Amino acid sequence: MGAIPADFAGPELRIGGRTPADLVAEAGDTPLFVYDVAICDARIARLRAALPDGVDIHYAMKANPYRPLLEHMVSKVDGIDIASEGELAMALAAGADPAEISFAGPGKRADAMEKAVAAGVTLNCESEGEAERALAIGARLGKRPRLAVRVNPDFEIKGSGMRMGGGAKPFGVDAQRVPALVRTILDGGADWRGFHIFAGSQALDAAALIEAQVATVALAGELADAAGAPPPLINLGGGFGIPHFGGEQPLDVEAIGAELAKTLSNRAQILADTRFAIELGRWLVGECGVYLTRIVDRKISHGKTFLIVDGGLHHQLAASGNFGQLVRRNYPVAIADRFGDAPEEEVSIVGCLCTPLDRLADDVMLPRAEVGDLVAIFLAGAYGLSASPQAFLAQRPAREMIVGNGG
Amino acid sequence: MGAIPADFAGPELRIGGRTPADLVAEAGDTPLFVYDVAICDARIARLRAALPDGVDIHYAMKANPYRPLLEHMVSKVDGIDIASEGELAMALAAGADPAEISFAGPGKRADAMEKAVAAGVTLNCESEGEAERALAIGARLGKRPRLAVRVNPDFEIKGSGMRMGGGAKPFGVDAQRVPALVRTILDGGADWRGFHIFAGSQALDAAALIEAQVATVALAGELADAAGAPPPLINLGGGFGIPHFGGEQPLDVEAIGAELAKTLSNRAQILADTRFAIELGRWLVGECGVYLTRIVDRKISHGKTFLIVDGGLHHQLAASGNFGQLVRRNYPVAIADRFGDAPEEEVSIVGCLCTPLDRLADDVMLPRAEVGDLVAIFLAGAYGLSASPQAFLAQRPAREMIVGNGG
Repeated sequence: MGAIPADFAGPELRIGGRTPADLVAEAGDTPLFVYDVAICDARIARLRAALPDGVDIHYAMKANPYRPLLEHMVSKVDGIDIASEGELAMALAAGADPAEISFAGPGKRADAMEKAVAAGVTLNCESEGEAERALAIGARLGKRPRLAVRVNPDFEIKGSGMRMGGGAKPFGVDAQRVPALVRTILDGGADWRGFHIFAGSQALDAAALIEAQVATVALAGELADAAGAPPPLINLGGGFGIPHFGGEQPLDVEAIGAELAKTLSNRAQILADTRFAIELGRWLVGECGVYLTRIVDRKISHGKTFLIVDGGLHHQLAASGNFGQLVRRNYPVAIADRFGDAPEEEVSIVGCLCTPLDRLADDVMLPRAEVGDLVAIFLAGAYGLSASPQAFLAQRPAREMIVGNGG
Repeated sequence: MGAIPADFAGPELRIGGRTPADLVAEAGDTPLFVYDVAICDARIARLRAALPDGVDIHYAMKANPYRPLLEHMVSKVDGIDIASEGELAMALAAGADPAEISFAGPGKRADAMEKAVAAGVTLNCESEGEAERALAIGARLGKRPRLAVRVNPDFEIKGSGMRMGGGAKPFGVDAQRVPALVRTILDGGADWRGFHIFAGSQALDAAALIEAQVATVALAGELADAAGAPPPLINLGGGFGIPHFGGEQPLDVEAIGAELAKTLSNRAQILADTRFAIELGRWLVGECGVYLTRIVDRKISHGKTFLIVDGGLHHQLAASGNFGQLVRRNYPVAIADRFGDAPEEEVSIVGCLCTPLDRLADDVMLPRAEVGDLVAIFLAGAYGLSASPQAFLAQRPAREMIVGNGG
């Protein structure tokens, strides 16, 4: 299985300085997600130290929209990136300044765009049609829309977990058509905000990310020159991954920051006054979360030991292998209340759903655990509860809480 | 892509005799799931005609727990199979008789079991420990628990989509330990309800299902003999699949019923007075559902046409390929309001989520469609909305409605 984040080094498991049992007692029950925002703060501080001046940090709230965590992130980062009308409402409720919100995503409905224009957030236009609709909405509302152009670059981050650019894509506008679209936006009287160029996600290879950033800054300069307009902001995308599985190494963000400083110091003249942003979700919050679930049964079948917990894929779909990926790998897990004990037996941990897909750890060596013990599943801070089928089998809902915000 | 169910043969798309536009108008908006329960009724009637006397039909409500559909199914089938405390509450609210409800699933918490025992539903014990806890709860409540034993058989349905038996499994009790557990249950004063033997799901091969049923009835006879007690009911499991993808053929349930009649006529003497049940979810409701979503954008990228809709994987995760299965195949899809038109162009249909995993149809030939047209995705009646990450990216919720219940 993957390595437990160093933030939880032990010898006992403490989350925000507290025991798992104490946290569950405060929350009232399991299953429980605990997010230690001090870990997020440390990530942000590390990244700020690594990045050159003039580069903002944006939080992609799709990674974790839990209200108290979102409020915390709003207070710590420079911008919130949203992907729906629902996220717009949540970001505003969490105190985000509309001028610091940008809205990306294909398939924006007219009613969603209208709310965004009315609120004064930036729309990242994903197509010429969408830009036209946004201009029409602005005219109708008598409000100048803030429009950026999402670019579909001709490259992608090599080795990224998900490809967002390169070739035919539903995201953004093919690079060669972007200058004309910028002119349309400017001619339409909109407040042009710049470019959003996202080439991939969940990459652990610093060299690949550096290469993509070099290409992104170069492309932005070419597009701005072709459009004849300097972009106020360039969102360089994100793509910073975290290690999930055995053998994966954390990303060298200091190397990325140092190279980005060189890249920006050599940027095209037209980008001289441009601000830049890195948009991150998983890297900022993924490691801050721990999913705590209680062992409900311990059973033997054909010589194999199963620990069955009261949580499962309805809360942590990715850890289960997403409904049957061909190669399922184990997220880092531990017996939360026997954290420092030596591994003693090989077990499989399964969730409570009545499906063979609800597997949380296959054949892992752990201290001996009994009914009533707590299991911790790490890397639960991003794409956990909100990315899982919470209503499946009508199991009890997960609770959530943040810790670590006292400092 | 897979074949559109024959219930929607055309020439135009009608669901419960109504146009997609009419249904959306009544529901108020897209995305919308429409379930035609007349199709479920036809499946039930066909199955009743095929099955021998003494075999009940149970509905596994995990397939689709939408309240009006569940109420309809409660009125039409002989039993409701549940998998959680939440489903217990939903089944009771939908009017199910507690004596006709059975509760399976590993990881039943004590509080869930207590509610089930108090309500008088049958608990399918998944382990010796769970049976002990159920007996203790019954003693504490002064209520005789109704307990069946879920058996982990040594065989599985060949070629089934999900393996539920054969080898080490979190489900049920290994067959060789079952007779002793039955004695414990009887000696503990419980109302022993029989066996639950589930060997697989989503099988399209009638011969494999017949073979599994033969083995299941034989195993039940052996276990009953060894326990020295006739089981009142044997839940034979289900496993009946429906075709999803190109090249798959519907299941021959008449062949299964005819062979099951032979199997039961040759059953062990100790099963002479036993009732049997087939437990089905997907086969009963999967084909009754259509997911309707509206085209929000039409765009070209590198020569490829994308139709972007206002729904997506947050409602229909399985159709998208479950967050990145290696081999993604297309569910049957159509342009709902141009159903009878000839295919004219190759397009990809993607959902509105800002992730490259939100793909609903790759490179399919369809009539030309424009922004505002409705897309229909079929096979949306089972494991659709409730099995999808509905909160992901805070997109607008799906609506649901049933039709076809007027007859």
